[in-house]
Amino acid sequence: MMTDLPRRLLAEFIGTAFLLAGVIGSGIMATNLTDDVGLQLLANAAATAGVLYMIILAFGPVSGAHFNPAVTIADAWQGNRPWADVGPYIATQIAGGAVGVILANLMFELDAISFSEKTRGGYGQYIGEVVATFGLVLLIFALVRTGRDHLAAGAVAAYIGGAYWFTSSTSFANPAVSITRTLSDTFAGIDPASAPMFVVLQLAGMALAVGAARVLYP
Amino acid sequence: MMTDLPRRLLAEFIGTAFLLAGVIGSGIMATNLTDDVGLQLLANAAATAGVLYMIILAFGPVSGAHFNPAVTIADAWQGNRPWADVGPYIATQIAGGAVGVILANLMFELDAISFSEKTRGGYGQYIGEVVATFGLVLLIFALVRTGRDHLAAGAVAAYIGGAYWFTSSTSFANPAVSITRTLSDTFAGIDPASAPMFVVLQLAGMALAVGAARVLYP
Amino acid sequence: MMTDLPRRLLAEFIGTAFLLAGVIGSGIMATNLTDDVGLQLLANAAATAGVLYMIILAFGPVSGAHFNPAVTIADAWQGNRPWADVGPYIATQIAGGAVGVILANLMFELDAISFSEKTRGGYGQYIGEVVATFGLVLLIFALVRTGRDHLAAGAVAAYIGGAYWFTSSTSFANPAVSITRTLSDTFAGIDPASAPMFVVLQLAGMALAVGAARVLYP
Amino acid sequence: MMTDLPRRLLAEFIGTAFLLAGVIGSGIMATNLTDDVGLQLLANAAATAGVLYMIILAFGPVSGAHFNPAVTIADAWQGNRPWADVGPYIATQIAGGAVGVILANLMFELDAISFSEKTRGGYGQYIGEVVATFGLVLLIFALVRTGRDHLAAGAVAAYIGGAYWFTSSTSFANPAVSITRTLSDTFAGIDPASAPMFVVLQLAGMALAVGAARVLYP
Repeated sequence: MMTDLPRRLLAEFIGTAFLLAGVIGSGIMATNLTDDVGLQLLANAAATAGVLYMIILAFGPVSGAHFNPAVTIADAWQGNRPWADVGPYIATQIAGGAVGVILANLMFELDAISFSEKTRGGYGQYIGEVVATFGLVLLIFALVRTGRDHLAAGAVAAYIGGAYWFTSSTSFANPAVSITRTLSDTFAGIDPASAPMFVVLQLAGMALAVGAARVLYP
Repeated sequence: MMTDLPRRLLAEFIGTAFLLAGVIGSGIMATNLTDDVGLQLLANAAATAGVLYMIILAFGPVSGAHFNPAVTIADAWQGNRPWADVGPYIATQIAGGAVGVILANLMFELDAISFSEKTRGGYGQYIGEVVATFGLVLLIFALVRTGRDHLAAGAVAAYIGGAYWFTSSTSFANPAVSITRTLSDTFAGIDPASAPMFVVLQLAGMALAVGAARVLYP
Repeated sequence: MMTDLPRRLLAEFIGTAFLLAGVIGSGIMATNLTDDVGLQLLANAAATAGVLYMIILAFGPVSGAHFNPAVTIADAWQGNRPWADVGPYIATQIAGGAVGVILANLMFELDAISFSEKTRGGYGQYIGEVVATFGLVLLIFALVRTGRDHLAAGAVAAYIGGAYWFTSSTSFANPAVSITRTLSDTFAGIDPASAPMFVVLQLAGMALAVGAARVLYP
Repeated sequence: MMTDLPRRLLAEFIGTAFLLAGVIGSGIMATNLTDDVGLQLLANAAATAGVLYMIILAFGPVSGAHFNPAVTIADAWQGNRPWADVGPYIATQIAGGAVGVILANLMFELDAISFSEKTRGGYGQYIGEVVATFGLVLLIFALVRTGRDHLAAGAVAAYIGGAYWFTSSTSFANPAVSITRTLSDTFAGIDPASAPMFVVLQLAGMALAVGAARVLYP
């Protein structure tokens, strides 16, 4: 059942705001509380998984719970939604994500916006983003194309929680996340100059996943 | 199927007692066992999530498994239960929570009651409590209004486990929890002078969530 | 569907062996790998939860997946199984648990059996065992008496994982576990002189839970 | 519904690649970020569980989601699939696993292949591999033979996450994993000379599980 576009966009907005508040906020909390970087990433990954589980369950019935331009584009590409939706969805995801980052910064009494100086890149991390996004999009299509959408919340949460650890880039896997994580100079931030390549490689991973999904789940 | 009020109140009482025993007890255990504050919060969050999962499953069919005055008020506001229930529910939640805190104190051979001297506040944490409670109540209504109540236990546990980390206040998100956590001068305690503002902001977050739920899940 | 007794006992035997191998083995691994006692308990609790989830799913359809004399006695008390089953079940649980402890000791190349010298007790831990067992048995009856047995694996795993942290005794909550954990002088062991009082208090917590279950889930 | 063999092999290939990328990659990340070996294993285990959950959900409907020669052999042994499938499945699992290890090495900018020098063995770890594989295969048959295949993703993830900790060998429990983990001289690697005995003992554990499954789930 399709709901009207404004309501769907509101769901994408709030959901992506929670996602980014979760990613950035838990990173700040982690560096505030411990010096062990392993423990920082463990907390960051676990909190992100918890938030993903919540937002996919809460907003899935309204908007499809994308929160991710790569997912929205793949969805339109597969013919599941009109291309006209894609622009508003992506703009809303980025706006919501930015609000989430700002909320996280404010919750920890930092400047509302401070551009990250954390350079991320190198061929290893670039492969990481392709792998991470390939896996995410393939997982989603695996569930959707076999009628198991209701498992998406747990599956995406578990996968991203794991991918924080096994990809060298800590698995951004989401262009809206990559763009808005530039707005916090904290644990989970990314230097604005590093973000575009992440986005490009996420779209490449998404395209590979669409191809694989067509073969695997015809 | 509505059960009679005394039985529902007993469920709220036992459930809220377990919730607070879980929050306070795991905080004490954590500070007893490690000096790493990050690890302390990780254990506290994980134990709270485990207890939430159990109490929502165990008591949901009896009382609705609120354990939280903000949820009870929102529920009545939405017309899901008579306003006459609200007073007894809230009194019972606070009483049960107090018993849970006392049990936790006694289990660790501390004074039954010792008022916390841990000041919590500042605009960052105040935003945190609004965000945390907004998310919790919106999640619950998202599930209830789309006929997925049976997912509440896992969803609330995952969300609160994450929110311990991404909100600066560690996500009390519950007036009964805020009031009764004053009764233990340990890791998870809160100074009695700090609690009222937490309660006010939790009710504000709840009101925002009720508004959002009406738009998103009409 | 009741299966024949020997098959049910085999399920209880293997399941309880895995439970104790999990509890003891993960405790040994934890102390081998880290000096942080908080991290040791976190690993011990997480591994126990994982094993509980597996054994309840695997053996539930055969034997009911008790692995716990307190659960077996409560089950007979409630009239769900003949009292004649109770003796063989308990003997099998203790034998299986002992084999699991021995396997854990051998997997880590320790003596097959070494009696624990870890004294556990005091009024705090005694309250802890009453609370822990009360919660466990009440949870199980809450699920069984509302037709949600299929949720027991996740619920028990989450609860016990949490209860490791919020009860001062780390939640043995099981007489067969209490008796057989005497057989390993490692992290999760218990001095044979400390075990009987744990068993008594677990049975007290169980009795309270049976009473509460009759009121809450008539 | 059986799909055609090439598609099933593609699913086994991608799935096993993700499994090994997950195991090896998270091990590298862990040693990069923390010196606490307990925390390293915790992250390694949690990431592996997250990846297992994803690959079993994603590829189960296509190939059965084995990713493990011991499971494939047991499946044919039980008459669930033709023996002619076994060779191609195993070859594909090993090839996919090798690609996953190489991807992990490259993601962290290490040599594509570096043979591990980590000797693993001794009677304790040998018992560990028998126990670990026995439990894994028994769990899978318990679910399949009682019509609960849909629970396999969560059950296997939880069990293996726990078995990383309670078996002294950290639970390889999979010949394809044992063979391909030789290709990375990092945290999760295994010396090529140590791998064959692990494979032999995994097959022994598998055979015991097939026997137990026939008795328990006739």
